[in-house]
Amino acid sequence: MKVDGDLARQVIRPRLRESHKGSYGRVLLIGGLYPYGGAIIMAAIACVNSGAGLVTVATDRDNIPALHAHLPEAMAFDFGERDRLLDNLRVANVVLIGSGLGESDAANQVLNLVLANIRPDQNVVVDGSAINLLAKKNKADLPECHLILTPHQKEWERLSGLAILEQTVSNTQKALADFPAETILVAKSHRTSVYQSKEVAHLEVGGPYQATGGMGDTLAGMVTGFLAQFASNDRYKAVTVASWLHSVIADDLAKNAYVVLPTRISKAIPSWMRKLSL
Amino acid sequence: MKVDGDLARQVIRPRLRESHKGSYGRVLLIGGLYPYGGAIIMAAIACVNSGAGLVTVATDRDNIPALHAHLPEAMAFDFGERDRLLDNLRVANVVLIGSGLGESDAANQVLNLVLANIRPDQNVVVDGSAINLLAKKNKADLPECHLILTPHQKEWERLSGLAILEQTVSNTQKALADFPAETILVAKSHRTSVYQSKEVAHLEVGGPYQATGGMGDTLAGMVTGFLAQFASNDRYKAVTVASWLHSVIADDLAKNAYVVLPTRISKAIPSWMRKLSL
Amino acid sequence: MKVDGDLARQVIRPRLRESHKGSYGRVLLIGGLYPYGGAIIMAAIACVNSGAGLVTVATDRDNIPALHAHLPEAMAFDFGERDRLLDNLRVANVVLIGSGLGESDAANQVLNLVLANIRPDQNVVVDGSAINLLAKKNKADLPECHLILTPHQKEWERLSGLAILEQTVSNTQKALADFPAETILVAKSHRTSVYQSKEVAHLEVGGPYQATGGMGDTLAGMVTGFLAQFASNDRYKAVTVASWLHSVIADDLAKNAYVVLPTRISKAIPSWMRKLSL
Amino acid sequence: MKVDGDLARQVIRPRLRESHKGSYGRVLLIGGLYPYGGAIIMAAIACVNSGAGLVTVATDRDNIPALHAHLPEAMAFDFGERDRLLDNLRVANVVLIGSGLGESDAANQVLNLVLANIRPDQNVVVDGSAINLLAKKNKADLPECHLILTPHQKEWERLSGLAILEQTVSNTQKALADFPAETILVAKSHRTSVYQSKEVAHLEVGGPYQATGGMGDTLAGMVTGFLAQFASNDRYKAVTVASWLHSVIADDLAKNAYVVLPTRISKAIPSWMRKLSL
Repeated sequence: MKVDGDLARQVIRPRLRESHKGSYGRVLLIGGLYPYGGAIIMAAIACVNSGAGLVTVATDRDNIPALHAHLPEAMAFDFGERDRLLDNLRVANVVLIGSGLGESDAANQVLNLVLANIRPDQNVVVDGSAINLLAKKNKADLPECHLILTPHQKEWERLSGLAILEQTVSNTQKALADFPAETILVAKSHRTSVYQSKEVAHLEVGGPYQATGGMGDTLAGMVTGFLAQFASNDRYKAVTVASWLHSVIADDLAKNAYVVLPTRISKAIPSWMRKLSL
Repeated sequence: MKVDGDLARQVIRPRLRESHKGSYGRVLLIGGLYPYGGAIIMAAIACVNSGAGLVTVATDRDNIPALHAHLPEAMAFDFGERDRLLDNLRVANVVLIGSGLGESDAANQVLNLVLANIRPDQNVVVDGSAINLLAKKNKADLPECHLILTPHQKEWERLSGLAILEQTVSNTQKALADFPAETILVAKSHRTSVYQSKEVAHLEVGGPYQATGGMGDTLAGMVTGFLAQFASNDRYKAVTVASWLHSVIADDLAKNAYVVLPTRISKAIPSWMRKLSL
Repeated sequence: MKVDGDLARQVIRPRLRESHKGSYGRVLLIGGLYPYGGAIIMAAIACVNSGAGLVTVATDRDNIPALHAHLPEAMAFDFGERDRLLDNLRVANVVLIGSGLGESDAANQVLNLVLANIRPDQNVVVDGSAINLLAKKNKADLPECHLILTPHQKEWERLSGLAILEQTVSNTQKALADFPAETILVAKSHRTSVYQSKEVAHLEVGGPYQATGGMGDTLAGMVTGFLAQFASNDRYKAVTVASWLHSVIADDLAKNAYVVLPTRISKAIPSWMRKLSL
Repeated sequence: MKVDGDLARQVIRPRLRESHKGSYGRVLLIGGLYPYGGAIIMAAIACVNSGAGLVTVATDRDNIPALHAHLPEAMAFDFGERDRLLDNLRVANVVLIGSGLGESDAANQVLNLVLANIRPDQNVVVDGSAINLLAKKNKADLPECHLILTPHQKEWERLSGLAILEQTVSNTQKALADFPAETILVAKSHRTSVYQSKEVAHLEVGGPYQATGGMGDTLAGMVTGFLAQFASNDRYKAVTVASWLHSVIADDLAKNAYVVLPTRISKAIPSWMRKLSL
């Protein structure tokens, strides 16, 4: 699949006049456990700026003031409140878990709770440390759902068993077959590729100015925001375009920046999506 | 009533040279209870940017740092401090209750406290979850005061008993008659209308780029800010123009944004009000 | 005294090449007690942007995260730490007390501590609620020091005993004579005047777009910042120019704003001071 | 050594296409203890904007919300967590200690922990109050490592025993010989010089608009960020160019600012580094 502005325009459709925030998805973002609070903040900023309708964050309670200092638009609760987590999980059409989750017992428990309660119609983006936690689980036990994985090379090694040098397209496709049908893989590297079944899209954008902390959290938030709005049309295209746009914006900002801060990308999302929706 | 720049100019009058912040209203905003802290922050940002003279927020104590990180201009106290709440209620000319209030017992109690202590000369804007709480009360028990309701369609259904498809102008006007005389209704939808007695104003602005979390909180804050300054002139026109300007700004920002973040609207209020006051 | 750009240029001198932050003053700002945390934040933002060398804030401990979210440049400690307060008081060349201080017993105690420990060579700016607290004290007990008072009309009524309508220049000058010699009075109104002994300067700037919460805190912070740097030259001119510039900036911003937010003024201070220093 | 854009271009190399955030260093910043929380926030903002790959801050737990309100890109933990501190120390290629550290027992203990566990291949930037603490220790006990000192004149007096008037180039070089081989000294004054062994570079940039609180913390953060990326090439040049660029940016901002706020410098770093990398 060629990934360019034309594909983006297929995904980022003008919004219907008669719609409301519920039309653009309900998202639950889980992560930002101490000492990684900033990660879920960056994912949330990206997700809201991508246009997700209603965004709720489950994180450390201590992390909420900083989140709200950036983004009063997101609701936020203590990830340890099991009932509230289940309530929010139930109504979400997309769940992101892993940005700044860490690998503590508490992190693993909340991941298990998500996996045990997710429904086949729901999208689950698994990012960062949740990928490492997932790598220790039996793939056969994964629930039926729309799974999206966003590992970098080392995380994919842990998850797939493929050493980085073995991560060819065909090996990756074979490894992906062990996951639930139609699982989408965003294989992050200096040239990110997006896989689903026999499909693969190689992104020809992005650069080393993106090599800074929080870049992946921002990508995960964008993918989540795109799924919230566009999954019902074509899930794979939505994830691919989100990944592409993330780097397109970075390329543009890098004309004037040696390093591109993740939050700068997020602020530019609405204007780029506007241009691509015309 | 035609709603346009001419009406706005009737409402947004140049300020008198000899005036002070007390001349522009004392506002009490109640809401932002866990896990909805951001909602009252957005309402407060909108209210201050609309020109309200003195703005005080009653919220969760844990929510104050994030509020002040955005808006040191607002005072803020723990909503559970009953005496302080009553003191602030007494001196307010406009009270907003409901943005991020939730529907807990504590939320209901603070709403009851407001309803029990409000005076006939005071304005009360009831928004969000406070509308749902109000729906469970007997309308005959509502206190005499200047009531402003800002429901979206589902909230109006709960409050009026009118199913969304039955929410015609005439049905809505009939339902509105059950509320205290001269109650103003901002009936939010993809085409918001503002009602009072036999008056109705249909707004021909706004669009689906506004379908994002916090948009209603921002509108409620603007309505409150306009009432703080302009209610003594014509309350209905003030509410109508606030609602109109909220969407006019969104329309303008949407030229460069696929989704319009609520806080972006608030930042643009002072320059728009300036233009309309000339 | 004519107050204009020429006077401002006399005060805002180019900095000497061989200098360090200690050359530009050590400031202690006391205030922002619950529920008025934002007030001292605004004073601090104004003070740092005015060029004060080292700024320390004594406030509620709970208020420090929001302060630092705006202004990591300021140090901040719990106002209840008596020893630390005395240490910081000792090394300060200017102390501001009162912005968001409130009138609680704790507020009065910290004011008493300042008055009991201030030295004749130190400047003390008394603002907001500290003026009300001062009004209850015996003027004869005021310590010898460089006192600067920044009341609005109602506060000046409380402090001087002059009803607002009686606040003529000559009455105000007479009332001022009850305070320590060379006390400076910034008499805030829609036309602010600055007094010292037989001097009076009427500001011909400012407007009703400034009638919003926090405007006075920002003025107090600017006055403090100017004293920190320029008091050794001419204290009265420094205070007058700070008061003038505060409104000059507001006038400029008001060309594009119906209401001018205090923090917007502060952000513009460095560029205005630069222009006036050339 | 002549310090100018040519030298900067030698240091700030275009990034390699095939790289990841780990390629640009792992940094541990230690400081910001009460009541100096803002200092480490400013250092962290400077460090991330300078392009460091992964930045972790050890500070007071109460300081984390304000840090994350500025910079979700940084991880942050309680400096009192000894095991976590040692884990982060182990993987860091650069450690900064001292910005807002204070001189308490707890501060001294964490400095001792760093000195006891640092490896010869690691860079340690010692700034602010950590310099004062170091001055009380026996230089012969300093561990073998790449040491970078960033004192202002008074701190260098304490550390070297040289009174300010005695801080000539030759005396400073002699005093520097008491420190571990190849220790780099950033001798801050109105004309900062950078020393290593027999090398000295005099910076001909900077001005008194930089005389404001936090300027040194920002410099320390930039030095740390440059070392994170460029130390393996030429450590001394990296430190020198970081110090130079800090003042070059200040000079540029000072064209429109009487005082240059430290955080304003940090925001301009990416665009300046971009220009210098072309």
